[in-house]
Amino acid sequence: MTYTVEIHKRDEITIAQAQEGDNLLQTLINNGVHIDAPCGGKGTCGKCSVRVSGIKDEASDAERELLGTIKLARGYRLACRCMITTDIAAYIDDKVNEATIITTGVHRDIEINPLVRKIYIELSPPDLENQMADLERVLTASKLVAAYNVSSFLGSLPFVLREAEYKITAVEAEGKLVTIEAHNTTGSLYGAAFDIGTTTVAAYLYDLSKGSMKAVESMLNPQQRYGADVISRINYTKQSPENMIEMRQLITNCINELLGKLSESVGISGDEIYAAVFSGNTAMLHFLNGLDASALAVSPFIPVTCGLLQLQASNSNIAINSNGLLTDIPCVSAYIGADTVAAVLSSGMYEHDEISLLVDIGTNGEIVLGGKEWLMSCSAAAGPAFEGAGIRYGMGGVAGAIDSFLPGPDYIYTVIGNKEPTGICGSGIIDAIAALLIDGVIDETGRLVSETDASSLSAEAQKRLTNIDGMRSFMLVAEGESGLDEPIMVTQKDIREIQNAKAAIAAGIDTLVKYSGIEYDQIKRIYLAGGFGSSLHITSAAKIGLLPQALVDRVEAIGNASGSGAAECLLSRSMLKASEDIAKKMRYVELSASAYFTEKYVDNMIF
Amino acid sequence: MTYTVEIHKRDEITIAQAQEGDNLLQTLINNGVHIDAPCGGKGTCGKCSVRVSGIKDEASDAERELLGTIKLARGYRLACRCMITTDIAAYIDDKVNEATIITTGVHRDIEINPLVRKIYIELSPPDLENQMADLERVLTASKLVAAYNVSSFLGSLPFVLREAEYKITAVEAEGKLVTIEAHNTTGSLYGAAFDIGTTTVAAYLYDLSKGSMKAVESMLNPQQRYGADVISRINYTKQSPENMIEMRQLITNCINELLGKLSESVGISGDEIYAAVFSGNTAMLHFLNGLDASALAVSPFIPVTCGLLQLQASNSNIAINSNGLLTDIPCVSAYIGADTVAAVLSSGMYEHDEISLLVDIGTNGEIVLGGKEWLMSCSAAAGPAFEGAGIRYGMGGVAGAIDSFLPGPDYIYTVIGNKEPTGICGSGIIDAIAALLIDGVIDETGRLVSETDASSLSAEAQKRLTNIDGMRSFMLVAEGESGLDEPIMVTQKDIREIQNAKAAIAAGIDTLVKYSGIEYDQIKRIYLAGGFGSSLHITSAAKIGLLPQALVDRVEAIGNASGSGAAECLLSRSMLKASEDIAKKMRYVELSASAYFTEKYVDNMIF
Repeated sequence: MTYTVEIHKRDEITIAQAQEGDNLLQTLINNGVHIDAPCGGKGTCGKCSVRVSGIKDEASDAERELLGTIKLARGYRLACRCMITTDIAAYIDDKVNEATIITTGVHRDIEINPLVRKIYIELSPPDLENQMADLERVLTASKLVAAYNVSSFLGSLPFVLREAEYKITAVEAEGKLVTIEAHNTTGSLYGAAFDIGTTTVAAYLYDLSKGSMKAVESMLNPQQRYGADVISRINYTKQSPENMIEMRQLITNCINELLGKLSESVGISGDEIYAAVFSGNTAMLHFLNGLDASALAVSPFIPVTCGLLQLQASNSNIAINSNGLLTDIPCVSAYIGADTVAAVLSSGMYEHDEISLLVDIGTNGEIVLGGKEWLMSCSAAAGPAFEGAGIRYGMGGVAGAIDSFLPGPDYIYTVIGNKEPTGICGSGIIDAIAALLIDGVIDETGRLVSETDASSLSAEAQKRLTNIDGMRSFMLVAEGESGLDEPIMVTQKDIREIQNAKAAIAAGIDTLVKYSGIEYDQIKRIYLAGGFGSSLHITSAAKIGLLPQALVDRVEAIGNASGSGAAECLLSRSMLKASEDIAKKMRYVELSASAYFTEKYVDNMIF
Repeated sequence: MTYTVEIHKRDEITIAQAQEGDNLLQTLINNGVHIDAPCGGKGTCGKCSVRVSGIKDEASDAERELLGTIKLARGYRLACRCMITTDIAAYIDDKVNEATIITTGVHRDIEINPLVRKIYIELSPPDLENQMADLERVLTASKLVAAYNVSSFLGSLPFVLREAEYKITAVEAEGKLVTIEAHNTTGSLYGAAFDIGTTTVAAYLYDLSKGSMKAVESMLNPQQRYGADVISRINYTKQSPENMIEMRQLITNCINELLGKLSESVGISGDEIYAAVFSGNTAMLHFLNGLDASALAVSPFIPVTCGLLQLQASNSNIAINSNGLLTDIPCVSAYIGADTVAAVLSSGMYEHDEISLLVDIGTNGEIVLGGKEWLMSCSAAAGPAFEGAGIRYGMGGVAGAIDSFLPGPDYIYTVIGNKEPTGICGSGIIDAIAALLIDGVIDETGRLVSETDASSLSAEAQKRLTNIDGMRSFMLVAEGESGLDEPIMVTQKDIREIQNAKAAIAAGIDTLVKYSGIEYDQIKRIYLAGGFGSSLHITSAAKIGLLPQALVDRVEAIGNASGSGAAECLLSRSMLKASEDIAKKMRYVELSASAYFTEKYVDNMIF
């Protein structure tokens, strides 16, 4: 049987077809609906909630737990749990595509010596006295050697040489001739740097002849449909070789779409882009290269490669000039990827005599400690709580999210985009928990005060303390103020999730400090990399114990340091070399094998 | 209108379809008939003669001249000149596929150090104490670095490693890891060497682990359908990009067919072949790589490249292991190709203190003079006479060809394959002309004696002197003895063709001797490379002035020296390096720019 699915989104209605028993989430994705499914459709994250009419089956236990009675009563279901057995209608809340993606980082002054270079040459035309072959004529004049796979441009070489009357531009990468262009094109030479995040992909276009940035674009990583976290995506690729190919195509298409936007905004063609540098975590780079990532997900967590990969573009589907050079920044381990290496690069900490700490807080918190002499790293599994997953009213840092929250009595808050709040993002919930700690609404074990113990609190706090679905909760925003037709709460379970997450990061830092044999006081600087690091309020983070209280005044947010590092590698061969040195030098501490980490994790559960 | 073409071949009849106005030669080729068309279908060589019935048009002037009255009367026409305007039948004389192709050369003792090597390694499996990535684990243990385009085998790397429980064989080329295989496969490592001749393609399979030859195969070069000579083929490729692609595909398919035969004869799969080395003239290597060869054919005769080309097999359509290495031996100029470089290599002359001369006689005669200190080369345009083209009864060195002919009175001859003679090949016609010179039937200007001057000759010689189509001729084989229902003759025009051809070679040698400043007596050895060099009778060659009379006792035929050189490069990295050194060291003399050559060419017209 074929059924009709009416998809309502803003003011548009799309009519889709589905077969008996089709999964609603998959049907929506197949019809181009971007929908959050951080757990990859397993019914555990509760983020694919959609208002539906017509579904016959009763809600499952998982749906009851994750959606709560109010949402269920309003017709919300988890799309991943719904089987289509009749004609239905689905109503999509359109909020996902409004993400603000951080695309700026700090910029150091680096010497411009880009990965690709152009050289204008006027050759003597051949005659009977000088019968040197075309390629050798260009090599001799340009003082270059031929690239390994030179045959890819030899096809056009004789035509270009003669059409241009031997006035040509040689394109060099890695000291080798990769192609020639007719006439003098040295004025046009572009490169792109990419930061492939699990959530978002940021792309930067540079004029390599001048070293200047010309355009920035970003997109949500389309692989999100198979899970917000890398493990869900790896599990998807393990199911079949086709899935692995699909996962690669999703990111390739995304990169090509970004390349198209970058080119368009500057008015160039993709063929003028001769180099692309990719940063990202180890799993993202595995997907990009079509490598099996299964061994990343299980102990002992082994990548296929951590090396610097360089590839002629013709050997990939990336739409830069086919003779151009693709470069992947090296990784350190399964959970310390090129993104961390690039962040260390762009922070400059690897050059400092003093010791710095770099932290990139996400589903995994990557932590690097050290300086010029040594670097040590670890990855702490914080879970997705800081990104809003597993938090009842959690959401990403997008419009409508509460992103800051102050202690009582007024409990003032701000909302991204100045809209009515529809949920709370990572920085907001850290603020909220810090506020509740200050107000004594939460004790140091993380427990919300019971009804019997609440009498010492302010009247406002007492009013806001309530139970929801039988769980102790604190109302952040009343129903009347929220954009949800229900209040926005923080529940006891939410607090436990944040406790787990912050304990992992803090214990990771403790472990590196311990293993390196330094004292906390020797850390002269803390770099917070990534979007979350930029939005985080340091005092709140220190209040809940996510960062060391004593070092609050040494914290610097460095934005998308992974993207900045990728751009530095694009613009400078010595920076690319530095990234290799960083990756080689950095010791990796496997926390899952560390008893000290486990001990500190428990200690750090306390606020 | 569609017409029927009955194709009779041996005892088979094929019914083909043709459209009004279709060319008969093209129709035959399209229907899988191998037919000689050395001029590429221009109506100038006369070799595509086919007996036809039904053709309406009168024979053209070209056909009258090239076929002669007897063949015309018997219904022979030039297939390339016939337009199909009605149902017809064509009768194919099947002789072309019986070519004997010389696939053996001399073999020197060289150190075996093949281009590709295998190393068996037992790796420690990863654990939490040793989390090195898969690729880096293999590189560390094998002491190799990663190949440039390493991503092509990274896809399978993790699966192979785990399936083989970390007991693997690393495959190395150029000091780099190109792939791994499960378990110990060091016993199986093969390579192929190819000599791509204009006429024939020879292929040799080697067991690289032992350095021993396992199989030899050869085929006619299927590009022959677009001309016997390189110029015709280049002209064909110039007509359209599709033609260029077709020309490449013809040789690629031929190579793959040979690879299939080689593999089959040894019982291995093509994946076990990890290296292929290609020798051939400059044009053949251009076609192989899909390079535009137009500039080879016009002054100042410029190749796209002469360099050593190395390519991962995955970047081509050559059916060896996709991670294997393809290597083209370097060339020197448009008309001194890799075949000559390889021949110089396998002759060993580049290592000798004494001076040697190497000559490879074909449509172009490649000539190399020198030794350890210097090498000088030229290419003399002999034309296709030595290969039978332009000679009335000329044919290649195939079954039925007269290949030796002794002076009178008996005029004894031998025939390849001991069949009734159907024509004469290069060595036969040189013998015949030498015999007629000895007998005084030809004077030193090359003129067959006139009827009035013939009285001093033997009675047998007088009897054989005759006129054919108004041209003075000498009957080599009487009608009754020939396999043609007509006598086999050598005509005055045939003698002029051979005079031109031998004058070009001899003048080329003279020019190199002159330019190098040596005396003929300093040449201690003459190497005759190629099939023609092996079948040639040295005394006859000296008698007609093709080779210097004084050096007859210093001549050595070295067979398919190009193929031997290719095999040496496959088996030894130092031999490949030597081939590069030879190509770099060898000075090329452009004869078309040499007044001395022109002068000597005229001098050498005299027998």
